[in-house]
Amino acid sequence: MHTHIVHAHPEPQSYNGALTRTAERALTRNGDTVTVTDLYRTGFDPVEGPRHYSSRTKPDAFAALAEQRHAWTGGTLPEDVAAEIGNLERADLVILQFPLWWHGPPAILKGWMDRVFVNGGLYTSTMRYDTGYFRGRRALVSVTTGAPRAAFVPGGRGGEFGTMLWPVHYSMHYMGFSVLPPFVSYGVQGHGFSYEEESVVAERLKGNLADWHQLLTTVDQAEPLWFPGWADWDADGGPLDRDKACGNAVAAGK
Amino acid sequence: MHTHIVHAHPEPQSYNGALTRTAERALTRNGDTVTVTDLYRTGFDPVEGPRHYSSRTKPDAFAALAEQRHAWTGGTLPEDVAAEIGNLERADLVILQFPLWWHGPPAILKGWMDRVFVNGGLYTSTMRYDTGYFRGRRALVSVTTGAPRAAFVPGGRGGEFGTMLWPVHYSMHYMGFSVLPPFVSYGVQGHGFSYEEESVVAERLKGNLADWHQLLTTVDQAEPLWFPGWADWDADGGPLDRDKACGNAVAAGK
Repeated sequence: MHTHIVHAHPEPQSYNGALTRTAERALTRNGDTVTVTDLYRTGFDPVEGPRHYSSRTKPDAFAALAEQRHAWTGGTLPEDVAAEIGNLERADLVILQFPLWWHGPPAILKGWMDRVFVNGGLYTSTMRYDTGYFRGRRALVSVTTGAPRAAFVPGGRGGEFGTMLWPVHYSMHYMGFSVLPPFVSYGVQGHGFSYEEESVVAERLKGNLADWHQLLTTVDQAEPLWFPGWADWDADGGPLDRDKACGNAVAAGK
Repeated sequence: MHTHIVHAHPEPQSYNGALTRTAERALTRNGDTVTVTDLYRTGFDPVEGPRHYSSRTKPDAFAALAEQRHAWTGGTLPEDVAAEIGNLERADLVILQFPLWWHGPPAILKGWMDRVFVNGGLYTSTMRYDTGYFRGRRALVSVTTGAPRAAFVPGGRGGEFGTMLWPVHYSMHYMGFSVLPPFVSYGVQGHGFSYEEESVVAERLKGNLADWHQLLTTVDQAEPLWFPGWADWDADGGPLDRDKACGNAVAAGK
């Protein structure tokens, strides 16, 4: 099994860094292999726009989807995007490792999606969801948050991770990945938001790394989340079975 | 009334551009005022990280929350962040205008949140949600998507906007804004995703601009979405009334 980790944290010595190093150890223990793209270290540019396209199909007005398709077809993809597509193509499992910033991934990881998931190449109107480019591969979100676990329930102060991660999960599903339940590290406390004694925090976070290591040793047996696919939709994209759609779509990730 | 528009599209001649120009016209018709931050035009850097902090409180290991708090207290906020906070402070209404990219805002707008919503200044553990810095002001998301309206229902192919926009809406709620129901422009078709004749599209999108203009002329009467607040939570951040929380949290935005 080969795993590719996309790591999005500005500080290598952070708990996110520890999670990624733990994943590398856990996933290489049997001769399996891991690659890591550290978006901050490589200075990844998350802003999709004209500056990435030297050869333009529509020079007068920038349209991201048209330029992505043109660059894919003409072999003029930006170097960093082409490299990252290669990393994804080699991976059986893709891990997105990030701190929860404003109820989602940091901009540098959002922009990795904006730029790397290339229209006309990695998806088309018929090659997406369960017919997506990366079907048969798995994706796993590992996210840290400063707030305690109790706040992350429906109606709770922090919100509920099924809803919060839906945009990321559904985007991975769109690309064809089977999305595994997320691994959430709670109470990773930054400056000014301490709910516990320092030694309690340290002990808890150490145990959490052990849980993460353990989860990854059996990740090949994990059951993916359910998301709707082509068999669930009518020609307009509406759900054929509204009850199934509602119940499961909202429950996914809980 | 003063409105501040945060505009996140790489192409001025795009439909997003037309929506922002329509909003400017609608919201200045009675001597009211509008400012626009065009994130692409100003080259806004959405990547939160060490390069924005010349005076560091923790020089050895970068912690975003600690550095934001330190910069706020010491008056060393990055210039672009300070300017944008000024724009927000002057606004009764904030409009976020963006195309839906991977089920959320483009990276440049996500990073605007990562950098501008400054810890220790614009929020603290007690100054957030309904006690947030911007309480009494309103926020409104205006988003475009290429897919047709029929696909955007629970379980539908495109997903459901209440869930999709939850992270953005809840982040604005966290900052104290009253969040208005979003304005969604469907079927704004990019290259390779055309479901209709060109003249049909043009006519529909023209009508949509008229709807947007109309909505903005009565925006002061719009009823905000419901999100939970301090009175709804116990000390751990869990919901006091689980049924109310579930029903409304999921329904919000539909």
